[in-house]
Amino acid sequence: MARRGLLIILSSPSGAGKSTLAKALRKWDDTLRFSVSATTRAPRAGEVDGQDYYFVTEDAFKRQVSDKDMLEHARVFGNYYGSPKGPVADAIEDGRDVLFDIDWQGAQQISTSSLKDHVLSIFILPPSITELHRRLVSRGQDDSETIEKRMQKSWDEISHWDGYDYVLVNDDLATTEERLKTIISAERLRASQQPDLMDHVRTLQDEFEDR
Amino acid sequence: MARRGLLIILSSPSGAGKSTLAKALRKWDDTLRFSVSATTRAPRAGEVDGQDYYFVTEDAFKRQVSDKDMLEHARVFGNYYGSPKGPVADAIEDGRDVLFDIDWQGAQQISTSSLKDHVLSIFILPPSITELHRRLVSRGQDDSETIEKRMQKSWDEISHWDGYDYVLVNDDLATTEERLKTIISAERLRASQQPDLMDHVRTLQDEFEDR
Repeated sequence: MARRGLLIILSSPSGAGKSTLAKALRKWDDTLRFSVSATTRAPRAGEVDGQDYYFVTEDAFKRQVSDKDMLEHARVFGNYYGSPKGPVADAIEDGRDVLFDIDWQGAQQISTSSLKDHVLSIFILPPSITELHRRLVSRGQDDSETIEKRMQKSWDEISHWDGYDYVLVNDDLATTEERLKTIISAERLRASQQPDLMDHVRTLQDEFEDR
Repeated sequence: MARRGLLIILSSPSGAGKSTLAKALRKWDDTLRFSVSATTRAPRAGEVDGQDYYFVTEDAFKRQVSDKDMLEHARVFGNYYGSPKGPVADAIEDGRDVLFDIDWQGAQQISTSSLKDHVLSIFILPPSITELHRRLVSRGQDDSETIEKRMQKSWDEISHWDGYDYVLVNDDLATTEERLKTIISAERLRASQQPDLMDHVRTLQDEFEDR
């Protein structure tokens, strides 16, 4: 039977392993795609419209918001960012899942949007703060002040762990990866993801009445 | 982390393969147990109290119902049948799942009971009415009148497929078995089944504040 796609929300503080896990998931199923955000900020060198972002004007963005065409949106440093509903609605109608790498505020908005029945929300927790700090430091990209800011932001994100469908403590990457695959495989089987069930039951009914 | 157990409701018309599937699940995980029903009917030869049924008086049964100690109950041919809450609540607190082989009316009652947050409801549909009929006939136990009654009852059950978390069409036993295992494995990971998550986050918070 054809299935509907899922809106798979992956939230976590940075350093909890989300990017590695998302990469592993896409290797497991290459039909999985991250939702492409719309933004009002200017493209940077090398960024491709429709791939990295949909680059839109502030007027166009605000119109999409008031038309309820944004699943979630936020303003960051004067620029708007959001997840346009159209491409996501098309994907799930075609049976393709869409990954969302968003924070708890975006997750809350999507979980109350018109597509909420197809949302699967997963939060990845670090095993410890020490380990989270170690992972941020070991990237070697940031000075200690930036790392401290990231730590504060990470804690703010962690404090909103509650309310997700699944919360996984990533103390072993292979285990967490397996769990994510099990969860996604199961959630794809949910009755709400199987639009053809009603047809099957109608066929059974016809068969029952025509005996 | 310790986990909570699930109340796993398996409903289906007779002949859809539920007993075979339940047997396979218990082979896969021998901690799975069917909930033992309470009944006011007299024990039959060989039936063991506490194993086949809890045999209780009508007064005791009605008291349990009014004390909300029955997760679901029904009256059938003058006898009461029900699922006592105590043993189920104990099992899920200990992290053991409990299987319920009940019809749609029992499923609805359990899904609105005080343990509803831990319910996983699954409906098994037959691939066709012809196949359902074939399976009922091939048992060789019943005359054609009894089979017709069973078919009517099966259709009544099928017509209440909607409202279950998962609805599986059992056209291949091995596939359905794998799907059930995937679903149960995933649902065990749900945040609502992980009572220790809150402790983990508290530990993270202490660690964050004590840096």
